[in-house]
Amino acid sequence: MMKIAVDGMGGDFAPHAIVKGVESVCREKIADVVIVGDEKVIRPLINNASGIEIVHTPIYVDMDESPSNALRKKRGSSVNKAFELLKAKEVQAVVSAGNSGATMAFAIFTLGRLKGVDRPAIATLHPNVKDGTTLLVDAGGNVDCKPVHLVQFAVMGNAFAKCALGMSAPRVGILSNAEEETKGNELTREAHRRIKDLGLNYLGYIEGTDMYNGRADVVVSDGFVGNVVVKISEGVAESIITFFKENVRKSLLKKLGYLLLKDTFKELSRKMDYSETGGAPLLGVDGICIICHGKSDGKAIKNAVVLAKGFVDNNLNESIRDTMQSYQSLQRVKERKKWIIF
Amino acid sequence: MMKIAVDGMGGDFAPHAIVKGVESVCREKIADVVIVGDEKVIRPLINNASGIEIVHTPIYVDMDESPSNALRKKRGSSVNKAFELLKAKEVQAVVSAGNSGATMAFAIFTLGRLKGVDRPAIATLHPNVKDGTTLLVDAGGNVDCKPVHLVQFAVMGNAFAKCALGMSAPRVGILSNAEEETKGNELTREAHRRIKDLGLNYLGYIEGTDMYNGRADVVVSDGFVGNVVVKISEGVAESIITFFKENVRKSLLKKLGYLLLKDTFKELSRKMDYSETGGAPLLGVDGICIICHGKSDGKAIKNAVVLAKGFVDNNLNESIRDTMQSYQSLQRVKERKKWIIF
Repeated sequence: MMKIAVDGMGGDFAPHAIVKGVESVCREKIADVVIVGDEKVIRPLINNASGIEIVHTPIYVDMDESPSNALRKKRGSSVNKAFELLKAKEVQAVVSAGNSGATMAFAIFTLGRLKGVDRPAIATLHPNVKDGTTLLVDAGGNVDCKPVHLVQFAVMGNAFAKCALGMSAPRVGILSNAEEETKGNELTREAHRRIKDLGLNYLGYIEGTDMYNGRADVVVSDGFVGNVVVKISEGVAESIITFFKENVRKSLLKKLGYLLLKDTFKELSRKMDYSETGGAPLLGVDGICIICHGKSDGKAIKNAVVLAKGFVDNNLNESIRDTMQSYQSLQRVKERKKWIIF
Repeated sequence: MMKIAVDGMGGDFAPHAIVKGVESVCREKIADVVIVGDEKVIRPLINNASGIEIVHTPIYVDMDESPSNALRKKRGSSVNKAFELLKAKEVQAVVSAGNSGATMAFAIFTLGRLKGVDRPAIATLHPNVKDGTTLLVDAGGNVDCKPVHLVQFAVMGNAFAKCALGMSAPRVGILSNAEEETKGNELTREAHRRIKDLGLNYLGYIEGTDMYNGRADVVVSDGFVGNVVVKISEGVAESIITFFKENVRKSLLKKLGYLLLKDTFKELSRKMDYSETGGAPLLGVDGICIICHGKSDGKAIKNAVVLAKGFVDNNLNESIRDTMQSYQSLQRVKERKKWIIF
């Protein structure tokens, strides 16, 4: 059986939510799990230990700790130990709902990056109106990017969509302020110039409205913008739901209407619920890692393990490595051609 | 009566939608209007010419024309002539649903900037769950910003919220990827350092989720991010409505539920409808200018004129000018102090 390490101390509801999620993983025989964290607090929470192992460490990273601080001072922390288990091939993937910056930092520090990747990126999965999934890369890992990073996000996102989402020719677009080539900012214009030569199924610039209308499969942006996209989406959805709840209170007939549409509201909530996808894969590190929402409950942790297992089964990283390699050869050929011409 | 110039040729539905909106403005005696554009096509559309004047020009800017191209080649265009009327004080404000980049370029070129403003910015008004309004500056005018521009957006947004929205101490925040001071990107970090000394009711960094929860009154961002915010919001709202419409078809009871909630859905649509606010003020140019959505219908044009009228009545630009001046004196005092210390 596959074995996956879960950071027992990471997340707003850790370790309770973590243990709950891990127990259902083991009960449903999805995988064996190593919970890394403080055994004294974790052990008493476990009702059924079958399939669960604990690797003890009393150290953990705080949710608001800076990644650089964590890297310097929290070497023996639960999240770092989880990655060490992966590095030593004792587990096949890591799941963490802890401080995402620190998780990313320890992943890079412990596992290293895949060849050709300068900046690993967080990829989030968003449901679109065509009943498909739109992938956003980078959803928050890298705030100040250079064009080459966006190019790598495009290549990794493309590989991910092919390998993990089963798309044959994912439509890739750069998130911009308008569709015309002349628009965008300095960063996107240069990235656009480079991505268009890669031979991807490339749409060019797409706009914010295309994030949910199913026009694109892979949306490329720097992590600052990506984070804004994720949180604005959350904010709009929450405010619409709040609006409904408050408005519906105003009359009995409306309450009845709401009741009749209860399933619809539930399905909407489910669609927008991060815990359904479980977490976001960290693309570009040498090992499978799922970063979960800080607010993750047991269901989210379970679904993150399911996601991680799928990526291991599909050899996600082989696929990213191969694509990065062919992208680099393409770049080398171009460089050589330049020398021949000039 | 106040007189306002409307670009007759700007917008996806021009000149029909423009004439329709202008006619209701004049019918309701909100203002007199000068429509600038091709008299041959505009005149026949007018049913009741009372209060309407036409200033003829056959030239207009295309919706997808680059602003620099328009500036060079479309000097006599409808939008430019509208600003010339404002410059000559023949009208008190300009409304345009045309190419927003070109409108902004001609506004700056013809009217000039208010003292102390390097980059005029587009401010959009967003309803929040506290039944208030959240202002976003810049919503799309300036893609590559320096910290000083964000500082000016904060000062202008603050003045706007006080003067036009009647807030006594608007809560101002910089849109970032997290609340901690250490987060953000190079641009926001430096802007944060400067804005926090201005004496505004300053919240520091806010997140995307705060855009609609009523936590902030003025949200500051560069125009690239601002455009993404506006369009992602549109995208999420549209996809939720599409989801409802499709899901509700599935059963008769659901259809009934939808019927009972029809008013709620209508109010939601109204809340999210750009045509309700009419348009977005361009802050920082020496004259009142409202930039409308390209898709503006008659109602949007009418509401934009109402908005413009309010800004003229409230002396919006005096207020921005005064605030910019006190901000600049503050900066000068600081510079002097630096010299005394070192």
